[in-house]
Amino acid sequence: MNIVIFLYENMTALDVIGPYEVLSRLPGADLKFVAENKGVVRSDMKSLGISVDHSIDEIDSADIFLVGGGPGDEAVRDNERVIDWIRRVNENATWTASVCTGSLILAKAGLLDGRNATTHFAARETLAQLGAVPTPERVVIDGNVITGAGVSAGIDMALTLFAKIAGDEFAQAVQLGIEYDPQPPFDCGSPEKASPEMIELVKATLAA
Amino acid sequence: MNIVIFLYENMTALDVIGPYEVLSRLPGADLKFVAENKGVVRSDMKSLGISVDHSIDEIDSADIFLVGGGPGDEAVRDNERVIDWIRRVNENATWTASVCTGSLILAKAGLLDGRNATTHFAARETLAQLGAVPTPERVVIDGNVITGAGVSAGIDMALTLFAKIAGDEFAQAVQLGIEYDPQPPFDCGSPEKASPEMIELVKATLAA
Repeated sequence: MNIVIFLYENMTALDVIGPYEVLSRLPGADLKFVAENKGVVRSDMKSLGISVDHSIDEIDSADIFLVGGGPGDEAVRDNERVIDWIRRVNENATWTASVCTGSLILAKAGLLDGRNATTHFAARETLAQLGAVPTPERVVIDGNVITGAGVSAGIDMALTLFAKIAGDEFAQAVQLGIEYDPQPPFDCGSPEKASPEMIELVKATLAA
Repeated sequence: MNIVIFLYENMTALDVIGPYEVLSRLPGADLKFVAENKGVVRSDMKSLGISVDHSIDEIDSADIFLVGGGPGDEAVRDNERVIDWIRRVNENATWTASVCTGSLILAKAGLLDGRNATTHFAARETLAQLGAVPTPERVVIDGNVITGAGVSAGIDMALTLFAKIAGDEFAQAVQLGIEYDPQPPFDCGSPEKASPEMIELVKATLAA
């Protein structure tokens, strides 16, 4: 089970580390972090650097292929070399997955044309402009593509995917192993639950 | 606001990346990942390497000091040089925090003597042996020490801490920004909700 997680500058780390923590526990998982070039990728908050062990020149297939989101997604969408590579890896992937604005990257590669997909709530319009059908769910499956909403939704997405691949019981053991019994301090984690002012504040912060 | 997150070999990445994603958004946050030595630390699932930008020789104080957990916690507890450093950083910290078995490390350093604290559910007995009072809550505050339960609990811990420092409204904006409206696929993420067989399976897997 080859799992490839794509990394890039200015990505949001939790987008991929949540799913990594789950998917790396699949039976026979061989998980690789891949970026355009080897070295270190800095996440959007700068203080975190993740090692890139493999460049896109070395890897061109995956059973599970995951792309996370973050402010750097736009630069990736403009990078034809990377977009071509994403198309190529997707071709033979059993599952292609995204978290947050990672779906904008998949859409730019033409992988979401006419498909239901989700993204960070602030990016729904852009997702539509790129040809997908934005769906305000936390986890959306359409064909062999599974997309998660903003940042923390990657954990729910990955557990859902894990269960599809390895069965409910094993997925439940992983959920218990990472003690995923969330108790958020506030009930405001989606635009459906937050005030209009709070939503505008977050959108403005993300746009800045 | 100086935030120090301690890294070590064989740690569980999500333990610290969840809180990093939240705490790095505190006003004026200057967040540093610190390990015994500079270079790269590999997490317990091996495929992930995190850059260590600072060694413990360079940093000896923090406003917020966070230690995560993972299978490598035992080697850290046996490392007197690191345990001494942890005591030193804690001395002037406004908040000392842990996730998962990170609390075992704090306890070994003597920081939890007689204090209420939480940890991964499979480590509660060890936490008691190290002098703390294990409390089966997801987030526990005792004095200036805040501890989170297993792995994913770091997100709840960090949002709780964020609200104490920067206020509820700002914490809510961060929670919305990372779209933290969790929808776990199963209701089995704590030992109170899982079957005895599942609990034993997870304990055996973690012990192996």
